[in-house]
Amino acid sequence: MKEKSPSIQDSLKPIVALCKRRGFIYPGSEIYGGFANTYSFGPYGVELKKNIKDLWWKFFVHGRRNMVGLDGPILLHPKTWAASGHVEGFNDALIDCKACKGRFRCDHLIEDALHKSADGMSLEQMTKEVQQHKIRCPKCGASDFTEARVFNLMFHTHMSKTGGNTDIAYLRPETAQAIFLDFKNVIDTMRVRVPFGIAQIGKAFRNEITPGNFVFRVIEFEQMEIEYFIHENEWKASFEEWLTSMHKWCQLIGLNSARIREKEHPKEQLSHYSKRTVDLTYDFPFGSSELYGLAYRTNFDLSRHAEFSGQSLEYTDPDTKEKFIPHVIEPTFGVERTLLALLCDAYDEEVLENGETRTVLHFAPTIAPVKVAVFPLMKKEPLVEKAEKIFKTLHHIWHAEYDESGAIGKRYRRQDELGTPFCITIDFDTLENDTVTLRDRDSMQQIRVPTNKLIEILSEKLNVGFYENQRITS
Amino acid sequence: MKEKSPSIQDSLKPIVALCKRRGFIYPGSEIYGGFANTYSFGPYGVELKKNIKDLWWKFFVHGRRNMVGLDGPILLHPKTWAASGHVEGFNDALIDCKACKGRFRCDHLIEDALHKSADGMSLEQMTKEVQQHKIRCPKCGASDFTEARVFNLMFHTHMSKTGGNTDIAYLRPETAQAIFLDFKNVIDTMRVRVPFGIAQIGKAFRNEITPGNFVFRVIEFEQMEIEYFIHENEWKASFEEWLTSMHKWCQLIGLNSARIREKEHPKEQLSHYSKRTVDLTYDFPFGSSELYGLAYRTNFDLSRHAEFSGQSLEYTDPDTKEKFIPHVIEPTFGVERTLLALLCDAYDEEVLENGETRTVLHFAPTIAPVKVAVFPLMKKEPLVEKAEKIFKTLHHIWHAEYDESGAIGKRYRRQDELGTPFCITIDFDTLENDTVTLRDRDSMQQIRVPTNKLIEILSEKLNVGFYENQRITS
Repeated sequence: MKEKSPSIQDSLKPIVALCKRRGFIYPGSEIYGGFANTYSFGPYGVELKKNIKDLWWKFFVHGRRNMVGLDGPILLHPKTWAASGHVEGFNDALIDCKACKGRFRCDHLIEDALHKSADGMSLEQMTKEVQQHKIRCPKCGASDFTEARVFNLMFHTHMSKTGGNTDIAYLRPETAQAIFLDFKNVIDTMRVRVPFGIAQIGKAFRNEITPGNFVFRVIEFEQMEIEYFIHENEWKASFEEWLTSMHKWCQLIGLNSARIREKEHPKEQLSHYSKRTVDLTYDFPFGSSELYGLAYRTNFDLSRHAEFSGQSLEYTDPDTKEKFIPHVIEPTFGVERTLLALLCDAYDEEVLENGETRTVLHFAPTIAPVKVAVFPLMKKEPLVEKAEKIFKTLHHIWHAEYDESGAIGKRYRRQDELGTPFCITIDFDTLENDTVTLRDRDSMQQIRVPTNKLIEILSEKLNVGFYENQRITS
Repeated sequence: MKEKSPSIQDSLKPIVALCKRRGFIYPGSEIYGGFANTYSFGPYGVELKKNIKDLWWKFFVHGRRNMVGLDGPILLHPKTWAASGHVEGFNDALIDCKACKGRFRCDHLIEDALHKSADGMSLEQMTKEVQQHKIRCPKCGASDFTEARVFNLMFHTHMSKTGGNTDIAYLRPETAQAIFLDFKNVIDTMRVRVPFGIAQIGKAFRNEITPGNFVFRVIEFEQMEIEYFIHENEWKASFEEWLTSMHKWCQLIGLNSARIREKEHPKEQLSHYSKRTVDLTYDFPFGSSELYGLAYRTNFDLSRHAEFSGQSLEYTDPDTKEKFIPHVIEPTFGVERTLLALLCDAYDEEVLENGETRTVLHFAPTIAPVKVAVFPLMKKEPLVEKAEKIFKTLHHIWHAEYDESGAIGKRYRRQDELGTPFCITIDFDTLENDTVTLRDRDSMQQIRVPTNKLIEILSEKLNVGFYENQRITS
């Protein structure tokens, strides 16, 4: 794929506008003036999201022999988050401007003003930095801040318990812990043997105050996570194998590999639970940022849950009889970030020979919300009838659209903006010789194909084989 | 399908036990002793749930011409719930036993003790009833209650806003309102014309204190909802059409129609927004209870959101130029209740000719978590190799399982408990004449079929046609 012009690369604006205009993504609660960093996925957004999730499930769960799925609750026992370390450690340092009441992450304030890292600073040190350097409020310019204070990123709520008390509960900030909580149930009820993985797709919530770069950072989002349970001995090989598998996934959904980079977390910046973490970053218009993560979590989580619950979370190897708490490799994927990367990758404004500009989404067929659109050349009876018939046949197999209104060129442009790989036009020749025009989104070339060959030709072009060949690889 | 024995019909116990034992449903946060009414869907439960949701989407969204999907946030602007009436009216009357601290719904307490309805009673009246009749605590027997008080069923949380204030936000108690909030975005960006519908699948949360009958009543659950926007004139016809469509859905997933009833809500019990509501109830082991709901909501919701937001939510008919706020027919489906009804419907303990009992789930192939299982008769090389090859071919098309361990009879029983419609056994004859044994779950009959006919025979037996014929009906 050719590189886009710098002006498009540098800004999310045209993508945000297209998403709104064409029913991919709307601002959340827009009629009430919006609400925090929330978004609604419109008719095409929800199809795109579903394609991502379905393909992920097929590739990583059904496509492997040693994987099972899970769907755990958002509201988990509060002890979960004490054990995981989130109650104590999942914090940002916040600071408020006394003048304008603006609220900021203190580390970002220091980094932006003083161009130095606030990593590892205590709250007191941060407050001192802000005061000593008379850092100004980015909103109103005043230098009058509160002290920095800890702010936990977990949303909390209150349960009404039959016991009479009202208990605090947290909205899970990651899906991972729901998997660890059911590790014992899975080994007790499924015939799994280490190494094996448990996969989950579901919502997680973080009380972020940082502006989000569209859907890149949002307060509620969907994660696709795998906890892959291994013997400690095999962690290095397993880590490499998963890294390869994650790159394959990027290929499968059609991301431009030139924009994907591996970013190794330096030892001193690793989370408390991790011995190695690699991010896959994507070159977003706002910079190269984390798309996916791969972490070796050791057996930190299972050990902590064993400790906090008093349950044994040991696994016994059926051959060697060795008992151990499995270690964990965790590949994690954000649905919204995947969707945003796909949009950025696919978006283009092409200047055509006639000087017009066409906006097009070059989605891979694997994830395109609509696979094929069917048009009668004009809204006339024999054409409409034939087009309807072809549409219904194709729609049984792929998600198709039917469109009979407006000039044919406009209908092509409309499908270009939705990223539909192929358009089929039924014209008067169709009634004569039962052939139709098949138009390719990317080359805009049109070929004439017999109606009775359409399914075969589309099957090949929609590249179903690409995906099928990836299955049952291990 | 024949009726089950009364002992099975009257109890959820064997179903709950099977769900745990075979990886369908685990109690939520079980290693910490459980947590409120929450559940985890295990490896087979998550596949069953996914099949339900995917089929629903295909049937109601892709299968109709005038439907679009949406995926709105769980956290909506708080004004949403003021406009919808939930802040004021989505309440239970609770009462606590002072002796044992037990907490109860006051209307249930009165209904159970005095056998009369508490509908329409004020808090004062309820408190008086409890005191005058010296109603006893169902837990400890004491007659010493607090006064009845209002308890809102919405979970609330707190947002950290950049404005400096901390604002309350609610976890949505229904998905419907997210659809109403995006009504304007959808009519502005999609080429829809009334009548049309917006569909959404997503989580909702209710702070219930009532015991739940397994996953029937839970604090977090998934809804599949449609808001179908119409002109007021057409509400009666549209209501009937949707009722028919909901019955078709029940057929499609294989529910026994003899257990489905229509329950018309009497006028005086209708919600404030509804002019007609019909429940589809299912004969659960604990009684006939609401499975699905169909409500004519008038234009209450859109009118209220127009009023509270100051936005115009009028639609202009392109032909007549009439401006109006559309009325709404709302078919609503719970994922967990669907799953529970399917389990209750499918569960059976059959006494075989040899006196043994087999437990079996008679799932319709449309929703069965595993469609086909493949076994080599013995764990011997040529059999295993051939079985692996057949498994991989079938698994590319349907979710299949491979099992090579244990006696063949045990492997059949295992698949019976998972509801797998067909099992294929590769034996020594297979190596001779390339035929395999195809075993039917329900009849337990085995037939010999050529390997190269397997896909064709299974395609027919798995009844793909049944579903395909239902599509694009309107």
